[in-house]
Amino acid sequence: MAKKFISMRNLKFLIYEVFDVVALTKHPYYSQHNRKMFDMVLDAAMKLSVKLLYPVFEEMDRKPPEFDAGSVKVHPLVRELMKQYGEGGWISSTFPEEFDGEQLPLLVANCCNMMFSAANYSGAAYPGLTAGAARLITNFGSPELIDKYVAKMLSGQWQGTMALTEPQAGSSLSDITTTAEPSDDGHYIIKGQKIFISAGDHDGADNVIHLMLAKIPGGPAGVKGISLFVVPKYRVDDKGKPVHNDIAVSQIYHKMGYRGCPITELAIGEKDDCRGYLVGEAHKGLFYMFQMMNEERIGVGLAAASIASAAYYAALEYVLERPQGRLISSKDPLSLQVPIVAHADVKRMLLFQRSMVEGSFALLLQCSRYEDMSKLTQGEEKEAYTLLLDILTPVAKTYPSEMGILSTSQSIQCFGGYGYCEDFPVEQHFRDMRIHPIHEGTTGIQGMDLLGRKVIMKDGKAFKLFGKTVRETITAAKQHEALNPYAAQLAGELVSLENITLHLIGVAGEKGPAVFLADATLYLELFSYLAIGWQWLLQAISVQKALKGKLSKSETNFYQGKWFTFRYFFEYELPKAQGVIQRLKSQDALTVDMQPEFFND
Amino acid sequence: MAKKFISMRNLKFLIYEVFDVVALTKHPYYSQHNRKMFDMVLDAAMKLSVKLLYPVFEEMDRKPPEFDAGSVKVHPLVRELMKQYGEGGWISSTFPEEFDGEQLPLLVANCCNMMFSAANYSGAAYPGLTAGAARLITNFGSPELIDKYVAKMLSGQWQGTMALTEPQAGSSLSDITTTAEPSDDGHYIIKGQKIFISAGDHDGADNVIHLMLAKIPGGPAGVKGISLFVVPKYRVDDKGKPVHNDIAVSQIYHKMGYRGCPITELAIGEKDDCRGYLVGEAHKGLFYMFQMMNEERIGVGLAAASIASAAYYAALEYVLERPQGRLISSKDPLSLQVPIVAHADVKRMLLFQRSMVEGSFALLLQCSRYEDMSKLTQGEEKEAYTLLLDILTPVAKTYPSEMGILSTSQSIQCFGGYGYCEDFPVEQHFRDMRIHPIHEGTTGIQGMDLLGRKVIMKDGKAFKLFGKTVRETITAAKQHEALNPYAAQLAGELVSLENITLHLIGVAGEKGPAVFLADATLYLELFSYLAIGWQWLLQAISVQKALKGKLSKSETNFYQGKWFTFRYFFEYELPKAQGVIQRLKSQDALTVDMQPEFFND
Repeated sequence: MAKKFISMRNLKFLIYEVFDVVALTKHPYYSQHNRKMFDMVLDAAMKLSVKLLYPVFEEMDRKPPEFDAGSVKVHPLVRELMKQYGEGGWISSTFPEEFDGEQLPLLVANCCNMMFSAANYSGAAYPGLTAGAARLITNFGSPELIDKYVAKMLSGQWQGTMALTEPQAGSSLSDITTTAEPSDDGHYIIKGQKIFISAGDHDGADNVIHLMLAKIPGGPAGVKGISLFVVPKYRVDDKGKPVHNDIAVSQIYHKMGYRGCPITELAIGEKDDCRGYLVGEAHKGLFYMFQMMNEERIGVGLAAASIASAAYYAALEYVLERPQGRLISSKDPLSLQVPIVAHADVKRMLLFQRSMVEGSFALLLQCSRYEDMSKLTQGEEKEAYTLLLDILTPVAKTYPSEMGILSTSQSIQCFGGYGYCEDFPVEQHFRDMRIHPIHEGTTGIQGMDLLGRKVIMKDGKAFKLFGKTVRETITAAKQHEALNPYAAQLAGELVSLENITLHLIGVAGEKGPAVFLADATLYLELFSYLAIGWQWLLQAISVQKALKGKLSKSETNFYQGKWFTFRYFFEYELPKAQGVIQRLKSQDALTVDMQPEFFND
Repeated sequence: MAKKFISMRNLKFLIYEVFDVVALTKHPYYSQHNRKMFDMVLDAAMKLSVKLLYPVFEEMDRKPPEFDAGSVKVHPLVRELMKQYGEGGWISSTFPEEFDGEQLPLLVANCCNMMFSAANYSGAAYPGLTAGAARLITNFGSPELIDKYVAKMLSGQWQGTMALTEPQAGSSLSDITTTAEPSDDGHYIIKGQKIFISAGDHDGADNVIHLMLAKIPGGPAGVKGISLFVVPKYRVDDKGKPVHNDIAVSQIYHKMGYRGCPITELAIGEKDDCRGYLVGEAHKGLFYMFQMMNEERIGVGLAAASIASAAYYAALEYVLERPQGRLISSKDPLSLQVPIVAHADVKRMLLFQRSMVEGSFALLLQCSRYEDMSKLTQGEEKEAYTLLLDILTPVAKTYPSEMGILSTSQSIQCFGGYGYCEDFPVEQHFRDMRIHPIHEGTTGIQGMDLLGRKVIMKDGKAFKLFGKTVRETITAAKQHEALNPYAAQLAGELVSLENITLHLIGVAGEKGPAVFLADATLYLELFSYLAIGWQWLLQAISVQKALKGKLSKSETNFYQGKWFTFRYFFEYELPKAQGVIQRLKSQDALTVDMQPEFFND
């Protein structure tokens, strides 16, 4: 395995030089923190990743969870990991002090999460899921629910899950049929089936707490009739004893990757004895769940970029060491072979990977900063941060997920034949990656969320705010002569995006929503080039500032690397927007007109 | 598993309606064939695929070859398959009658190979490799070598391999160190190590015949000192008895996909008792090997497109049956869910897959036709076919291989979460696919082959011929009113390609070969859009002709499907050329200027 899976230098560059996390500590909410403490947190996270998660990265893939006689046996690391994450305050790191949390800015917490996921995505999923489930309870649950569940989840004793999907309801949540029948004792009797539930059961935790969507009979049809419940694997009886709560694991799925974490199928209430506890008000379940969706979706993008980071560093280590071929300029067969990294096409592949990884990390941390700032502000300012986060979330989820497939594929390519073999872990990164365009809302769903909801909501307020924010970066970049051509290039792309958006809104009026949204996935792709280009320009400003100072050799190398990667993105990636724009301008609604029977033969 | 893995209707459309294979039978060499016989051959190949290969497609992945005490045990199907392929004349199908071959046009033989690879790529590899190795012997070997080896290979009793790669020489063949010391008895003593040798040893054949590259001591350095040898696993002694030829399997590689075929590491001549037999003249080994490279590389592209075909039909079957969500125009949650195929974004994903599969098949069969025609012609005409084949080979190898990753990824996406699980075979298709951009020359090598060799050779003769040929198609397309805008679009892209080519040749003169070839991979991508667009326009001409006739319902569906897929390619895929062109025009040679140490941190 490679020595490195993520760059601490880059993470510090992003949070200190680009996003100025220290500025957050001037606000009372974060005032107990300072840079020294952030550094300590980052170092501790790196240590945990290196010592605990990374060493079993391959082993958890090779020895996946086993399903035997109704129970799920996972790698012994999982129990140790939940314990250490609980005790170390990692699950509760961003929770407020009232829940014994560290009240850490997401900007810092997500850097830690990047390390965890880069070291071992399957391993990092267990505490990550638990934190998300616990936050649903603290945000929307009653004091009783909070009392009963949150502490044990944040301490890593109990696993948390999100239980949404059913056999007939994947992307279409309005079709869930799991029922929650009210009882006289205040709880609900849950009955139904859930599929694809990550960490839905395992022997690495003493209990599993499902945050489950179900319908209370008699409620409104569709999504308006969905409620949210806490449904534990073991409920606690009056004497404090655990009682099995009638949730059976009917199978675990055998997956291409992400194999260290069991994905389960659950049969709930087959003996009519599964109790659920309503979170918040009835019929508001989907609303609550979607309050969490920003966090969950950014978590997916984060995991994807982190996996790509690990694959990139594995490829980099290999190409720096492995000799193969000679430079085009000196083909003498008696001369020594050069390391693969000397070939321009290999450097291009590396720059692609790095531009994707660091561009994605930047966007994800930008979103984290908006989330942090939304906690510190009120009124219009708070709304602005929330709107920016809303519109960027589908991008931050999808760009790393889709580009991550290409990026890890290029990591494999750097290895040649060895990349295809299990001798090196990049093939696992490639397999682990492929889940991300699917879970927490497919790429198609993200496209429709962006164009059909986020761009047009509040009369385009979020979209306009995004344009304004990008223009601020463009203006700032113009202070640096070296950045002028790139600032102009991004400004041009922004105008193109705005024009296409207006064009598509015109299409919506003229031809209806089906044609309007037919190419929403492409619109998301276009938006992504712009958003990542913006993040690279933002980074390039910090790079230009740094390069004007006196730097050590290694610091010069770091900033030069950033500078070349920035230029790579603007030279090779941003131009891809052209092809997407050409299509989005077209009037041929062929994917709407195409008939299913034309696919015969 | 899905019922279908390839479309016979499409293959017949291509060879009969687009490439007019029947016209070949007017030439004496193919005069023993006719359409009825071709149909019988195609039906027999389909039967073999359905009955023999497809049923074990998953099983060969789940139970990969085992390496035990020096020998490789493969799935029992392999022996049966080699037998049936040998007896049925499938290994020898394109060999001339003098070798008991069927003398079948490649156009037809490659349709059969598409079926085989779509049904089970790992399975199809065994006879495919054997045919390639046997052809090296018949093309360049002495009558004695032909007598001794070819019949047993074509009958499927003996496995053939291509043994090129060594630990220190993958893409850089000039660095091989396997030696061939001449003996007094006419044979050579071979000593060295080979890695990544497909089917390099297994118990499904009675012998393994390696077509191996090695260096005769004292020969020229680099590629000019490479010779080609027949090196059998068992040599036959004077009494006709098999004697072990001192080739040991040191390991088999554990791979992400393509798991049904063992990839071996071979230790050759550790006891100084490995005999090799020179093929043709000394020091001409690489020349011979590269005579076969067109065939091998087209074989890789063919396998990639075939795997994508199988994944596409699996996805299609699923989306036609699986209900999920409602149309954007009618969101009533009480209405029934629609099949996934009804969503425009899903149709877009399907059209992408189909455009890639059928566009690739067309280009591969176009190449096959050029190969067939080169056998029937002489002088300038023959040269033209050979040049067209030469320039298209890197495209026909790479486009299906690289796009196949995206295509099978979209097949997975059509399944949602199920696509990530082993319940369906698409995740295996995705894994099987990933080898193709690597073996038989990586994508980077193909790019340099195209731009650095094929485009500029003979003063650009092949490139000009390609332009002329595409313009003939454009002219023919203009006869059909419906095709006019598309013909104009392709003509514009062709001019762009020609301009970029001139620009790059200017760069070569001005800045040298390193900058000239730095973006050769992107140039190959650009060339591919043009070549596949050309093949779609060619198909669209046949579609327009057919749609003017009286058609049954199912035939109308077929041609309408073609028509929409053609439009999809021109609307969604061809525009991607814009982004590549923008980059290729740029003067920033950043991948050449980038220094390895800038990748630190």
